Amino acid sequence: MDMLSELRPIFYPRALAVVGVSRDETKFGSRFLQALLDFGFKGKIYPVSPAGTEILGLRTYPNVRDVPGPVDLAAIMVPAHLVPAVLEDCLAKGVKGAEVFTSGFAETGEERGRDLERELTLIARRGIRIVGPNCFGIYCPASGLTLLPGGDFPRESGPVAFISQSGGHAVEFAREARGRGIRFSKVISYGNGCDLNEADLLEYMAQDSETKIVAMYIEGPREGRRFAQLVRGLAPRKPVVIWKAGLTRAGGRAAHSHTASLGGEEAVWDALFKQAAAVPVCGLEELADTVLAFLHLPASTGRRAGVVGGGGGISVAAADACDRVGLDVPPFDDGVQQKLGEILPAAGTSVRNPVDIGRPLVPPQDFERVLETVASADCVDTIIATQAMFHVLAGTFKLPPREGERFLQGLIRTPARVRDRYGKPIVIVLPVGPDEVEMVEAEERRREIRDQYLSMGIPPFPTLERAARAVANVATYFARAAQAR
Amino acid sequence: MDMLSELRPIFYPRALAVVGVSRDETKFGSRFLQALLDFGFKGKIYPVSPAGTEILGLRTYPNVRDVPGPVDLAAIMVPAHLVPAVLEDCLAKGVKGAEVFTSGFAETGEERGRDLERELTLIARRGIRIVGPNCFGIYCPASGLTLLPGGDFPRESGPVAFISQSGGHAVEFAREARGRGIRFSKVISYGNGCDLNEADLLEYMAQDSETKIVAMYIEGPREGRRFAQLVRGLAPRKPVVIWKAGLTRAGGRAAHSHTASLGGEEAVWDALFKQAAAVPVCGLEELADTVLAFLHLPASTGRRAGVVGGGGGISVAAADACDRVGLDVPPFDDGVQQKLGEILPAAGTSVRNPVDIGRPLVPPQDFERVLETVASADCVDTIIATQAMFHVLAGTFKLPPREGERFLQGLIRTPARVRDRYGKPIVIVLPVGPDEVEMVEAEERRREIRDQYLSMGIPPFPTLERAARAVANVATYFARAAQAR
Repeated sequence: MDMLSELRPIFYPRALAVVGVSRDETKFGSRFLQALLDFGFKGKIYPVSPAGTEILGLRTYPNVRDVPGPVDLAAIMVPAHLVPAVLEDCLAKGVKGAEVFTSGFAETGEERGRDLERELTLIARRGIRIVGPNCFGIYCPASGLTLLPGGDFPRESGPVAFISQSGGHAVEFAREARGRGIRFSKVISYGNGCDLNEADLLEYMAQDSETKIVAMYIEGPREGRRFAQLVRGLAPRKPVVIWKAGLTRAGGRAAHSHTASLGGEEAVWDALFKQAAAVPVCGLEELADTVLAFLHLPASTGRRAGVVGGGGGISVAAADACDRVGLDVPPFDDGVQQKLGEILPAAGTSVRNPVDIGRPLVPPQDFERVLETVASADCVDTIIATQAMFHVLAGTFKLPPREGERFLQGLIRTPARVRDRYGKPIVIVLPVGPDEVEMVEAEERRREIRDQYLSMGIPPFPTLERAARAVANVATYFARAAQAR
Repeated sequence: MDMLSELRPIFYPRALAVVGVSRDETKFGSRFLQALLDFGFKGKIYPVSPAGTEILGLRTYPNVRDVPGPVDLAAIMVPAHLVPAVLEDCLAKGVKGAEVFTSGFAETGEERGRDLERELTLIARRGIRIVGPNCFGIYCPASGLTLLPGGDFPRESGPVAFISQSGGHAVEFAREARGRGIRFSKVISYGNGCDLNEADLLEYMAQDSETKIVAMYIEGPREGRRFAQLVRGLAPRKPVVIWKAGLTRAGGRAAHSHTASLGGEEAVWDALFKQAAAVPVCGLEELADTVLAFLHLPASTGRRAGVVGGGGGISVAAADACDRVGLDVPPFDDGVQQKLGEILPAAGTSVRNPVDIGRPLVPPQDFERVLETVASADCVDTIIATQAMFHVLAGTFKLPPREGERFLQGLIRTPARVRDRYGKPIVIVLPVGPDEVEMVEAEERRREIRDQYLSMGIPPFPTLERAARAVANVATYFARAAQAR
């Protein structure tokens, strides 16, 4: 059976049993139930609980086998030693999938936990696919399924899948992504991966037409060789962004006690990343930045950056930051320098690359001419432009009150126009600026401007370092993917 | 003459001539004048301008020699070719110091600019010390002197000096530092350093009793050997945090066109950092984080970190991040693990190091017991604890309305108490969390909480990576400084 059909009951359940719900609202069971109700699960929900008859307005059943209608998926949060019995009940009931939230299995490092987990694996082979144990479940906006906790996640779907061995990272990424316009096809926290592991889930995402970009957090793969093969096959078609954690000594130890994973050697992973066109990232911040860049940047995104910003020291820092992540900042030829020299005054600016516009911000018409000149340079693939708008937002760069907004709007609309005219990708650096408590209104406006950029397909980043890293990741991917094809 | 006396007229001028002011409010001259007035310069201000009789309510003089009283410092912003004549006038008037804001000297890369700059150097030798050219001047809250632009800088002094070859970075750091409680003795943007260079200014800071921590941004030192010697002498007594820019190929090129600097080789700098107990940082963010850590962390800050946070994946990431910056995360012995096991439930937590408290936040009394247990572990020098308070602030971790504030206040006050009781430094990671526009109130509260931590001497950082890097920098410094002494 293909993965799409096999995992359909797990991602798109029409009926869901939540096993292990109690009246105690602080417990996982009722918190998950509440998250499902808040989020608006579209199918039927059957709470399973030995005590009581109703929880959160829903009728409860003493056992999953007592549920009147068919059940596609069981969410299980009973204590570890009771999980095998619940799974047996699920098998008897014909339930096709289970997400086991309960922890206390192999990750405890104890014999008993390992034995219990092996038992789960054996039960799975008899006809029920398991996500977990020791996980936070699945978020799939199209079916209304959500993680624990995840009642507040976006209802809209998007092209990004996140396969995460960590529940915390799954939740955190889904939340952090909200403000940056990243939307998901599926987020899966698969924990110890006793049955469905990173390889199975990647195979599913390879087939899933909803998913265009795959992001992963992995502590230790369960099927290393199969996983590497799958990455090799998929990466040239869909970007696979991988945060491999636990590669350091201390990290490896922590991974072992988190999901019973063996960290693996950095060199083995490096080789995989190079051969397979997978994109390695280090941390949630880089993961989110890179996914954001993939959402908006085209295959023509290259390593030769044209950098535009205000302030000489900031240009030096920008050049250093680009170089460190492997972006070129090629010096402009005389023709380009001369054109820039006609726009910018000679003193306090630089018409080489990076372009130092001399001030934090120049008027929109000058900014447009600078961007156009840089976009027309043959040596430039991609443009990174800093717009230190906090100077206007926080009132340190004074403009007449009405003019301020027109000035900003002119600047905000420029990059998308230049991109469309010259066909070169542009990313924007939109720094936070002074962050005292009283400055929070400027931060609110900054977020609005960020959203405006996002709506025009211009990815904004808070620092140049982060922008450069994301651009470098995307450029490296497209170069390797083209070779691999 | 000692540096303190020699540079007194520059840092503490009783009378200041601003040469090159016009009525045009967008020009540097009048913007600088306005900044001085806004900031509240304590001495006399004499605008010097060939045209008109009054600017911004101040009487103007056609030439600095026409000023009736004595003048300590001249701020010069006339076009480059006129600067030598103005300096001659200053010499004639007996002015002791000048800050030359004007650019268009050696940084242009042209013969004419280099010649002009040499002329300035020669004039300086005849009895006037020069800051610049191509700079933004000096910020010294004690005398009311400020940078261009800098009318909104804090009026209070503090123990940090920032010596910056870049005016943009000088302004940016002074602004960014505000929200983090970093206050300055002096900030100097010294630009091309035709007379006073990084070595002179460092020598001054070595003698300046107001200055306890020196931060520097350097593109290319003018007197490399003397500078290295000074660092070696000073660093064991006062931390010297150095951001050396322009070390990459692209960065070196940009530095050359910014301040006519030669970048230098990374290996030479690395050797200096190792021998001299200077603290190398890479970028403004790390510079600010490291200075913040030095402000609050004692000499006992060591490399063996006890890490506390909620969520297994987050613990793995924390361990990786610590390892990458050279912090140890030693596993706890059985005694400590057992004590932690009595506080935390067995499932979904970890009592090794990092400690995974299993949830984003635990009640204050449990948090205190966890911190106390970690602080009492012999293998721990320094504690890094994540407090993901945005879960409460943004309402995703629900507490009864009144209890929420009491819960948070209990958590906020715990670290300082444990630090005082056990004598071990504690830093806090206070993540921003979801950053949609609507979430800006949570950000406002987060900033208030950050300020509360600062007031208790507990340095807060937005990410674990940044906290770990700052702690590692401080720990490395104290270890090397002890050896060097």
